[in-house]
Amino acid sequence: IKVQGWVKSIRNQKSISFLELVDGSCSNHLQIILNPHQSHGIQTGSSLKVIGKLVKSKGIQQGKELKCDEIEVVGKCSADLYPLQKKDHSLGFLRQHLHLRTRTGLMSSVLRLRSRMSDQASSYLNSLDFFKTDPPMISFNDCEGAGEVFRIQTDQPSTQVSKNVDDLEFFNQPAYLSVSSQLYLEAFAHGLGRVYTLGPCFRAESSQTNRHLAEFWMLEVEVSFCEELEEMMRLVERLIKFIGLEVSDELESVWKSQGLEKKKSDKIKEELQTRCPRISYKEEEDVVGNRLSKVEWGDSLGSEHEKWLAGVYFKSPVFITDYPKRIKPFYMLKNSDQQTVACFDLIVPGIGELVGGSLREFNEERLRENVEEKGMDGMDGKLDWYFDLRRFGTNPHAGFGIGWDRLVCWISGIENVREVIGFPRTIGMKNV
Amino acid sequence: IKVQGWVKSIRNQKSISFLELVDGSCSNHLQIILNPHQSHGIQTGSSLKVIGKLVKSKGIQQGKELKCDEIEVVGKCSADLYPLQKKDHSLGFLRQHLHLRTRTGLMSSVLRLRSRMSDQASSYLNSLDFFKTDPPMISFNDCEGAGEVFRIQTDQPSTQVSKNVDDLEFFNQPAYLSVSSQLYLEAFAHGLGRVYTLGPCFRAESSQTNRHLAEFWMLEVEVSFCEELEEMMRLVERLIKFIGLEVSDELESVWKSQGLEKKKSDKIKEELQTRCPRISYKEEEDVVGNRLSKVEWGDSLGSEHEKWLAGVYFKSPVFITDYPKRIKPFYMLKNSDQQTVACFDLIVPGIGELVGGSLREFNEERLRENVEEKGMDGMDGKLDWYFDLRRFGTNPHAGFGIGWDRLVCWISGIENVREVIGFPRTIGMKNV
Repeated sequence: IKVQGWVKSIRNQKSISFLELVDGSCSNHLQIILNPHQSHGIQTGSSLKVIGKLVKSKGIQQGKELKCDEIEVVGKCSADLYPLQKKDHSLGFLRQHLHLRTRTGLMSSVLRLRSRMSDQASSYLNSLDFFKTDPPMISFNDCEGAGEVFRIQTDQPSTQVSKNVDDLEFFNQPAYLSVSSQLYLEAFAHGLGRVYTLGPCFRAESSQTNRHLAEFWMLEVEVSFCEELEEMMRLVERLIKFIGLEVSDELESVWKSQGLEKKKSDKIKEELQTRCPRISYKEEEDVVGNRLSKVEWGDSLGSEHEKWLAGVYFKSPVFITDYPKRIKPFYMLKNSDQQTVACFDLIVPGIGELVGGSLREFNEERLRENVEEKGMDGMDGKLDWYFDLRRFGTNPHAGFGIGWDRLVCWISGIENVREVIGFPRTIGMKNV
Repeated sequence: IKVQGWVKSIRNQKSISFLELVDGSCSNHLQIILNPHQSHGIQTGSSLKVIGKLVKSKGIQQGKELKCDEIEVVGKCSADLYPLQKKDHSLGFLRQHLHLRTRTGLMSSVLRLRSRMSDQASSYLNSLDFFKTDPPMISFNDCEGAGEVFRIQTDQPSTQVSKNVDDLEFFNQPAYLSVSSQLYLEAFAHGLGRVYTLGPCFRAESSQTNRHLAEFWMLEVEVSFCEELEEMMRLVERLIKFIGLEVSDELESVWKSQGLEKKKSDKIKEELQTRCPRISYKEEEDVVGNRLSKVEWGDSLGSEHEKWLAGVYFKSPVFITDYPKRIKPFYMLKNSDQQTVACFDLIVPGIGELVGGSLREFNEERLRENVEEKGMDGMDGKLDWYFDLRRFGTNPHAGFGIGWDRLVCWISGIENVREVIGFPRTIGMKNV
C-alpha cells in the first residue's frame, strides 16, 4: 500500500528506524519500519510518500505497522528552522505560530473535535425540524445596543485624496459587523418556524481575557410560538449534552494529547450528565449569602460569582433566570413584576456564562416602550423592520445563543478560547 | 390537537370558512374548517392558535383537515398595512421587504432548500473524512491579490476628534474582510489532511449584476497530497450531483412555488445528471470558432462566452481547464509549458462560473517567483506564514471553491443570487 503524511517522530537504531506518520485524519499514527539508510534526511515535520506492506506489529501494542519498501521525501523540514519540535510546546508559544500549530497533536485533535461538534449540533437540531439559516455578517444596526462594534468601509475613499471616514461608505449608510444574528434570526423564524445558525459574531472587545475574542462563534437558535422559558432551557440542556456525549471519541483524543488527568476528564463527563439546576437571579442572592462580595440588585454577576456558583456550589452547569431588566437588552419579555425579564444564562464550571436566552417581547407597543426606556429611540428608524415582525402576525417566540468557542473549551477542558479556534482575533494582535 | 401558524389564505363562504395555515416547517399547508363567526378579524398573515379535530377531508385532495373547535388570533395582520398580500408579488417588490419575504411560499422554500443543501454537502464531505474548519473572516491580506476588499475598523477613533482612518486600527495593522478562506484552509489542510468550510466571503463589488453580492457564500475545499487536477474535478462533480439529487423534495417545493414549467425543471434535473465534459482553455478557442467574438489568448472568458459554451454548445456544465497564468492568482501550479496553470473553472448553463479550483504551487522557491511575477513582492512579509507551509513539510495539494449562492440558483432555477439568500448585500443598498 501507499501512504502519505507527515513525520510525527523518528527514532533511529543501529539496524532499524521507527517512524510515526500522521495524515491529519485522526490522532493515531501509523508506525513505519525503515532501514536506517532509508531514513536519511528525514526529520520531524517532513512530508513523505511511503510504499510498503502492512504487517502485524511485533511490539506490545498489537496493531499493524508498515514495512517500508520505497520512501520519498516530498517536503523536507529542517529541524534547525522548524519552530515546532518533537517536545511539547507551551500554548503561548504555539499561539505565535498559528499557521503551524494545527499540526500539533493537541490542536489537530481540538479542531477535529470542533468540527464533529458542529455536525452533532446540526444533526440534533435537524431532527427537531430546525433549518440552518445564513444571516448577514454585514449589518446596519448594533443588535444589543451595547456592543463595541467594528465598522466596515471600502478600502479606497471615493475621492482618492480624502482620508475622511465618511467618504468610505459602500452601502449609503454606516455598516457594521454583526454582533449577533438574533434580530435576523427572528425574521427567519417568522417564515420558517424554527431556525438556527452557527457562525462568527464580532465585538471590538478591548479586554484581553481567556474568554473573549474579537471574532467569536455563536450557535444561535430561534423558535416561533414558544411561550415557556423552561422549553428553551430544556432544549439548551439536551442540545449541549447530545453534542458532548456524541463526540466522546474525539474528546478522548483531546484529553490524551493534553495529558489531562483522568480525574479532570471524569469531572467533565459528570458535569455533562448532571441535570442543571435552575435558580433565579433573586434566589442567587440567598445562595451566595455572605460568602462572596454582595452583588447589588440590578448589577451583573461578576465572573468570580459565576465561577463560584457553578464550580464550587453546584458543581454543575446552572441556569440563572429572571435577571433585572436594567442589565438585559430591549428585546426581552418583561415578567409580570415589570422589573425582571424572562431570560436565562447558563453558567458552567471554569468558564462562566456559556449560553444566554430569553422569551422575546412580541407586542409591538411594549417593544417600542422598551426601546424608549433604554434610550435607543428606535435608532432613527433602523429598527422599523424589526417592529414590523410584531406588527404583522406576531407570535410569542424565544431563542438563545451558545458561545461556541466556550462550549468547545468547556467540553474539552481547555481553558483559553484562543486554543479552540484556528486563527483567533484579539485586540492589538500581530499575526497571520 | 393544537396547531399554531400563520394564515396563508382565508376564504369565507356563507356557512363555512376555509383557512390555509402554514407553520414554516414545509411548503404544505393545513386546511382548517371554521364557522364563519370564528373567522372574524382573521386576515392573511395573522398568526393563530387553533384547537380542533383532525378529520378526513371531504375535498378532492384526500388529505386530512382540521375542524376548528377553538381559535385564538395571536397576532393580527392588518390587510391595509401589510405589504404582502395573497396575490403573487414581483421578486423586485419582495426585495424591498427582506424581513417579510421569508414568509412567502417561494422564499421559504428556497431557504429550506438552501439549508438542506448545506446538510448534504457536510454529509457527503464527512463521508470522505473531511473536517469542517472555521477560518477567520478578519484577515490581514487580500488572498487573491485582486479583489476589492472591505476594511474594518473600530467605530470610535482612539482620539475622539480625529477622523483620520489610520487612527481606527484595532489590530495594529490594516484589517480586511476575507475575500476567500483559501490560504487559511491550506494551513488547516496541513494539519488535518482534508478540510472544508462553508461561510461568507466579502468583496466590495461595485457592479450590480444578478450574479454578484458584496457578501456571498462559498463552499471551499482543500485536500493534502493531491497531485491530479482530475481528482478535484471528479470530487466537484460528485459533490454537486449528490447535493442536487438528495434534495429533490425541497426542489419540488421551490419549483411548485415559482410555477416553473415542467420542461425547465426537467432540464435542470438532466443537467444535474450529465457527466460534465472537460475542455482546456486552448481547446475552447476551437469550439467557439468564429461563432462569438474572439477571446484574445490570455484574456478571461466573458460571461457571454461562458453562457454560450455551457447553455448552447454543451447543454451541460463544463469544466474549462489550464487557463493562462496571467489571469489566474499566484498560488496556482504552473503546467510544464510555463504559460498555463493547472486549474479549472466549472461553467454551468444560465449562471456561468460556478466553481474555481486548482493544484497549488507547493515549492517555496517557485511560489516566491510567482509572487514576484505578479508584482506582489510578498506583500511586505504578509505572506511569510504562507511561504512557511511550503518550507516545512510541503506537499502537493489542491482545492476549489463553489459559489454557494450560485449553486442554489442553478439547482433551483432561480436567476438572481439576491433571491437565494435571506439578506443580500449589494452596493448602495438601503435595507434591513
